Amino acid sequence: MNLEILKDITPYNVDTFKKSKERLDSLIKPVRSLGLLEEIASKLCGIQGTLNPKIDKKAVVIMASDNGVCEEGVASAPQSVTAMQTINFLRGICGISIISKANNTDIKVIDIGVLEDIYYEGLDIKKIRKGTRNMAKEMAMTEKECLDAIKVGFNTVKELKGEGYSIIGTGEMGIGNTTSSSSLLIALTGCSIEEAVDRGAGLTDKQFLHKKEVVEKIINLHSEYLNDPIECLKRVGGYDIAGLVGLFLGSAYYKTPIVIDGFISIVSALCAYKINNNCKDYMFASHISSEKGYNIALKKLGLTPMLNLNMRLGEGVGCPLAFNIIETSAKVINEMGTFEEGNVNIDDYKDLWRDEN
Amino acid sequence: MNLEILKDITPYNVDTFKKSKERLDSLIKPVRSLGLLEEIASKLCGIQGTLNPKIDKKAVVIMASDNGVCEEGVASAPQSVTAMQTINFLRGICGISIISKANNTDIKVIDIGVLEDIYYEGLDIKKIRKGTRNMAKEMAMTEKECLDAIKVGFNTVKELKGEGYSIIGTGEMGIGNTTSSSSLLIALTGCSIEEAVDRGAGLTDKQFLHKKEVVEKIINLHSEYLNDPIECLKRVGGYDIAGLVGLFLGSAYYKTPIVIDGFISIVSALCAYKINNNCKDYMFASHISSEKGYNIALKKLGLTPMLNLNMRLGEGVGCPLAFNIIETSAKVINEMGTFEEGNVNIDDYKDLWRDEN
Repeated sequence: MNLEILKDITPYNVDTFKKSKERLDSLIKPVRSLGLLEEIASKLCGIQGTLNPKIDKKAVVIMASDNGVCEEGVASAPQSVTAMQTINFLRGICGISIISKANNTDIKVIDIGVLEDIYYEGLDIKKIRKGTRNMAKEMAMTEKECLDAIKVGFNTVKELKGEGYSIIGTGEMGIGNTTSSSSLLIALTGCSIEEAVDRGAGLTDKQFLHKKEVVEKIINLHSEYLNDPIECLKRVGGYDIAGLVGLFLGSAYYKTPIVIDGFISIVSALCAYKINNNCKDYMFASHISSEKGYNIALKKLGLTPMLNLNMRLGEGVGCPLAFNIIETSAKVINEMGTFEEGNVNIDDYKDLWRDEN
Repeated sequence: MNLEILKDITPYNVDTFKKSKERLDSLIKPVRSLGLLEEIASKLCGIQGTLNPKIDKKAVVIMASDNGVCEEGVASAPQSVTAMQTINFLRGICGISIISKANNTDIKVIDIGVLEDIYYEGLDIKKIRKGTRNMAKEMAMTEKECLDAIKVGFNTVKELKGEGYSIIGTGEMGIGNTTSSSSLLIALTGCSIEEAVDRGAGLTDKQFLHKKEVVEKIINLHSEYLNDPIECLKRVGGYDIAGLVGLFLGSAYYKTPIVIDGFISIVSALCAYKINNNCKDYMFASHISSEKGYNIALKKLGLTPMLNLNMRLGEGVGCPLAFNIIETSAKVINEMGTFEEGNVNIDDYKDLWRDEN
């Protein structure tokens, strides 16, 4: 991955974004009364550069990888679960499998660094290495590996766009990846361990205390070098996270809307944003994760999640539900009638309906 | 409407509700990690009395009616907008028309008290009277009118169930109905005018002050009599609200899941709950309305909305989006694999994945 190409990432089309607000204000409803649904429609108009945005094929990309830091005993489940669940996604029995199918969404599962050799029909094998190194002792990955993992995500957007996908969701699977995400969040924002570390998929009190000690050890080991997002990513990230960073960068480069899922996904989004601020223009937040650090990253990105489901599964499960809302917002701006079409006299009614504050 | 029949309303099936939790805990994910989605699935199991809940045809019912209290100048738009929008819903150009269509949902529009005589293909004319009386001067409706309006809603559930609809959403149209809803909220809960009254579809500061004065006048006029929910409803409600109350009562009677939309809808839900507490078992909250009093009613009902869209349109627009989430939750419990099916050893992993707090 040559990062030079990222200089070509531009903000969304401000002209269509602004014109979409005028269009939305002409529709037969009190001004702005559809709230976030209108903001989503406008953002989509900005991204697609049109007042008639459209969502066609939808995909959630799942980056699966293992984390060397599991040596430190930070995760509640054994690493072998990464490989098993990666296969189970494609077998169609996991949360993301069912929630995608229920919402007319395809899934693309990428082995970007699973420890075991795995094969399954449809599995996209782009393994950088069999798991990262133990970041409590050394850098999680080399710079080359980091850039290669970003490239996997970046190119996946190009590929999906070529296949007619118009929106992308961001899922992941990797036992131990809340530890890498928490470490990366601290590295990127300087927030405290207390703010960034939570129980992940379910730790006991004792395991939770230990996880915080490990994160402290990680941050102390790398603290001198955490100035630049790529440096942070290669030291305390994971291949799954780097792959997601590549998806966020690619979606901005290829002007494709991309949906954030939970904690790991939003930390990856924040990392992409730190690499190129324009990435934010292409991001939508799906649901408010119940993992503690989520809100810190959310605040830095200034996004508003549309769903309030108290989920903490990962896998990308918030994305298909969000796709449906985004698609609905596109239909609102395309298909709703105007005051004129509704035989309501704008002069008599529209100003009266406007919230003057 | 003979209220005696409401004594037959029972809670949902506690047995299938409880068993659904066991089933959800056996699915291949950290326990409870799908959060509210799991709670929705369980509630659906309780309502439908099965561990294999299913959502078939979906409908939003829109109760349209005028409010005599508009004489007091409480609304920003003229009353004629009620009639026009009622037609526009069926013409397919309004927010609810588009959002329903985008989510595979039918709409049923009922004229339960529109001031003008209106006709349109598909309009269900069940007019109780041409608008309520001015509640700032007298009771909004007689007891008979109130019960008749409840009956319209109650029977609509029976009818829709007969046509194969398995879930119902609650929409409304009635210029002035945030004034009746705020008054009813105060009557039902004893909350303050400041807590209950907001700007509705968009009032200026001066109009807003005036609206609060009118609500104060209404509450003072009727205060001696506001002890019983039917008494509150007939004095300070509306035909639209009474129709919605009937929908909530009917959905509980006919064991059909029903979705709350915004402020007017949730005040109606609260009124039904006060008439029979078991109604709550059949209700789902769709979105957090940005109308102030919404949260007061929500707290009394103890429900958790799934969507966070900052909408304040009414019409039922939150319901089709919520239907999609509820339908997804049904597919999760029906179709996700168990730990066994996922080749994950429960003894090794399940307990480790369990959040011990």
